[in-house]
Amino acid sequence: MIDKPAAPMNRRSLFKLIGAVAGSAVMYQAMSELGHAGESGYAGPIPLKGDVKGASVLILGAGVAGMSAALELRNAGYKVQVLEYNDRPGGRNWSLYGGDTYTELGGFTQHVQFAEGLYLNPGPWRIPYHHRALLDYCKRLKVALEPFTQVNYAAYLHSAKAFGGKPQRYREVQADFNGHVGELLAKAANQSRLDESVSREDKEVLLEAMRDWGALDKNYEYKKSLLVSERRGYLSDPGGGLTSDSVDSDPLAFHDLMQSRLWSSISAGHVYEFQSSIFQPVGGMGMIGKAFGRELGPLIQYNAKVTEIKQDGRGVTVAYQDTQGGGAKVAQADWCICTIPASILSQIPITVGAPMKAAIDALYYDSAIKVGLQFKRRFWEQDESIYGGISFTDLPNALIGYPNSRYFDDGPGVLLGAYTFGANSFQYAALSPEDRIKKTLEYGSQIHPQYKTEFQHGVAVAWHRVPWTLGCAGHWTDELRAKHYDDLCAIDGRIVLAGEHASRLPAWQEGALLSSLDAIRRLHERVLAG
Amino acid sequence: MIDKPAAPMNRRSLFKLIGAVAGSAVMYQAMSELGHAGESGYAGPIPLKGDVKGASVLILGAGVAGMSAALELRNAGYKVQVLEYNDRPGGRNWSLYGGDTYTELGGFTQHVQFAEGLYLNPGPWRIPYHHRALLDYCKRLKVALEPFTQVNYAAYLHSAKAFGGKPQRYREVQADFNGHVGELLAKAANQSRLDESVSREDKEVLLEAMRDWGALDKNYEYKKSLLVSERRGYLSDPGGGLTSDSVDSDPLAFHDLMQSRLWSSISAGHVYEFQSSIFQPVGGMGMIGKAFGRELGPLIQYNAKVTEIKQDGRGVTVAYQDTQGGGAKVAQADWCICTIPASILSQIPITVGAPMKAAIDALYYDSAIKVGLQFKRRFWEQDESIYGGISFTDLPNALIGYPNSRYFDDGPGVLLGAYTFGANSFQYAALSPEDRIKKTLEYGSQIHPQYKTEFQHGVAVAWHRVPWTLGCAGHWTDELRAKHYDDLCAIDGRIVLAGEHASRLPAWQEGALLSSLDAIRRLHERVLAG
Repeated sequence: MIDKPAAPMNRRSLFKLIGAVAGSAVMYQAMSELGHAGESGYAGPIPLKGDVKGASVLILGAGVAGMSAALELRNAGYKVQVLEYNDRPGGRNWSLYGGDTYTELGGFTQHVQFAEGLYLNPGPWRIPYHHRALLDYCKRLKVALEPFTQVNYAAYLHSAKAFGGKPQRYREVQADFNGHVGELLAKAANQSRLDESVSREDKEVLLEAMRDWGALDKNYEYKKSLLVSERRGYLSDPGGGLTSDSVDSDPLAFHDLMQSRLWSSISAGHVYEFQSSIFQPVGGMGMIGKAFGRELGPLIQYNAKVTEIKQDGRGVTVAYQDTQGGGAKVAQADWCICTIPASILSQIPITVGAPMKAAIDALYYDSAIKVGLQFKRRFWEQDESIYGGISFTDLPNALIGYPNSRYFDDGPGVLLGAYTFGANSFQYAALSPEDRIKKTLEYGSQIHPQYKTEFQHGVAVAWHRVPWTLGCAGHWTDELRAKHYDDLCAIDGRIVLAGEHASRLPAWQEGALLSSLDAIRRLHERVLAG
Repeated sequence: MIDKPAAPMNRRSLFKLIGAVAGSAVMYQAMSELGHAGESGYAGPIPLKGDVKGASVLILGAGVAGMSAALELRNAGYKVQVLEYNDRPGGRNWSLYGGDTYTELGGFTQHVQFAEGLYLNPGPWRIPYHHRALLDYCKRLKVALEPFTQVNYAAYLHSAKAFGGKPQRYREVQADFNGHVGELLAKAANQSRLDESVSREDKEVLLEAMRDWGALDKNYEYKKSLLVSERRGYLSDPGGGLTSDSVDSDPLAFHDLMQSRLWSSISAGHVYEFQSSIFQPVGGMGMIGKAFGRELGPLIQYNAKVTEIKQDGRGVTVAYQDTQGGGAKVAQADWCICTIPASILSQIPITVGAPMKAAIDALYYDSAIKVGLQFKRRFWEQDESIYGGISFTDLPNALIGYPNSRYFDDGPGVLLGAYTFGANSFQYAALSPEDRIKKTLEYGSQIHPQYKTEFQHGVAVAWHRVPWTLGCAGHWTDELRAKHYDDLCAIDGRIVLAGEHASRLPAWQEGALLSSLDAIRRLHERVLAG
């Protein structure tokens, strides 16, 4: 039951071998020259060559992991069948539209009433530029993409405990943070207090850098001026003709800025997964799942609830319930790729060895909540010049995500009114969907008073109550990973697991895809080896 | 010839009056409550009420200033005629497409060979979120907009003199800058070297902020780690399944980073005009000029070269040459709005008072160069994961702008290969268009070696050689503005000037529009006053 090393060696393994033998500089050079430095392990469609001699594969779950496996294995000549619990493809790749109905654990049913074309992505909503596998599948499946804005300088940073609860524009906090940090460091440098760390040569350049980056004046001070307004915005913008003078704005004081903790939202945009550029499918993230579903057609059996997974030396047998009244059924195949979340899989009898079973049982699933709110008009654009991006708050809703599509539209718009993890999401999940929406409106109206008059409909998805995942994504601690990850991913007889939980990019669709591609590559080698 | 104050008072003037009487805090409160803080002076379509009794206005120039004036005055009941030098509307609002021909001063003619739908914007290319007048005209004229990316973390920062000429990714420079700055400031704070400036209470929060923002470890050090790779990118990204370990990248050393001066490109994205969100018209900036032109139809007379502008107590008479063979002609009206750039206007006889004439003659025009390059494929996306945004270099081409449209397209793509001002642009302008393109390819291939094999066609516009502007935009120094700006903008008898040069947003279309709207508001009051 131990996985054999991959042969032929893939590029990633080659680079690692070079690194081990010749050191990281040579590895980096090799990677750079082959155009692979700093990129996803994905380097184009996976080649599964060789005669599979009619081998069959049963795939459990029609999320992006399961459907990418199905697509590639079908193309390689396998007999493929996919069993899916829901009545639609995609899994957590999912958009809720007007007319959709969603019933969560506990029985609450929500009837989504969004206007045509508007949606909430309860699950993933962003595709970073370096998620090359997912971008490539979008291209192959003809899913149109459009830019997703993460950082918007007009959006708000808000703390109920700072500035009398008045939200500040991102550009104001960003400019004042740079300015105060730059001024402090320049002062220390000018007072020769960095001399142990910084050479005279570098000190001169550092001073120049602080002035440029921090918008400091010639005395290295950050204060109200045209120079500073040109970063944080004006009180009144420059105009044209004779009524055109600008009025400078007042920077936030260092003490107030520090204690507000609004600076804590700046680093998000610097994080690799949230850096520009980012994309989203036109019409909702669920367009990817739909496209995979169209491509696979009758290979996917919907409304199939898996109840048992058995294997022996000759094949795999899966018992499932046809939830549309078809009763108990059985599917069989030579091999099985199981993408059912560990949170669900741990409750299903499965014949795998103790190491994989322990891994499945050990993995905890994160909680998360998303609330979509439809408003009569896009007041964030019309009143506040916020086109896309995210406002952050220390209230339990955590953030407000503005739609990155249909800019300037006169019709209604749907905001992401809450997206939060951990304790706040548990509190949210304990409420009825109606009360979750009510709370979200309460919080959001502290940032946008227009909430009170413009709200129309909402929908709230608490991931711990999603019947087919019981959580949003696998939560790996370093300890859990060291103990269980390899056992979770190794092929166990005729069964291999795939999905975001079987990757080092948990909660990301790219992780699900790369996990799936790695699993089928190994499975294919096993099949060819006989 | 002195301009009377506007009555009724507009909002801007009201806010200023409040500020003068009650101080800036009250003014800010008033502006905030009316939803106007930090916004353009534009607050919706200009109301020009009252009976204009058949008054006529001659408008010189069909750029966005002239055409917005024509549109509003026509709607207010004026008889309007526009004279335009070119055979198209837009002026500097301009896109060059395949099939277009452009002849510059000196006689060089370029035949643009771009593939269908690809273009270069020789003039403006960005619309910031706070340019509310331009955004509103786009909406009124049904010009579709799409996001423009300024900051792309995958784009390059390049210096021929640093890192052996090897370009660095923006994310690497950004992360290492934050990290080193954060480490230095945290160290100074921990050694009690900021105690004169920072209270004990704020110091604790500052340390926390530096750790968060700079990706510092628990000892406040910035060094190679998973934490740091999660900002600057990995040597090898995390993946899925069993071949999924990530490999950390090596931060640039503080000394190398400082001396490289690559940090100097970071602040651009923080500047008010270049902050996210930014837009561009779908299909090229010139779509705005085209839409205005369609709206105005026969009101615009093209191919009309103005040769003299005369006024007396009863009206304005403009002599012009019909450059399509129609010979010398004359147009007359009660009033005139002249949007001809000062660089051209200073060469045309005009009956205005000495103050306005001195202002016209005093204004210098900036030089600028833009070079568009078509390549066989979008290698920057396919090979390097750069989707839109800008790479900066200290070579004379200054930057490379990647197209913010048609992402993931398999066909050819057009880059902005050079966009530079000042000395470099003069050197560029001295070359033939062919040699400008050759130079641009030489520079760019130091960043993208693919230039050498993928290049197809190019076009180069040097603004000092554009016959109808002789420069890209008015260059106001503080001294020039103090001496001449009010004289340039004041109504002189029956003539008023408008355009970006008559604004405090020089070189921006928003400046041209706000200048125009202010000019027609004042002119309209004059007309109604009789």
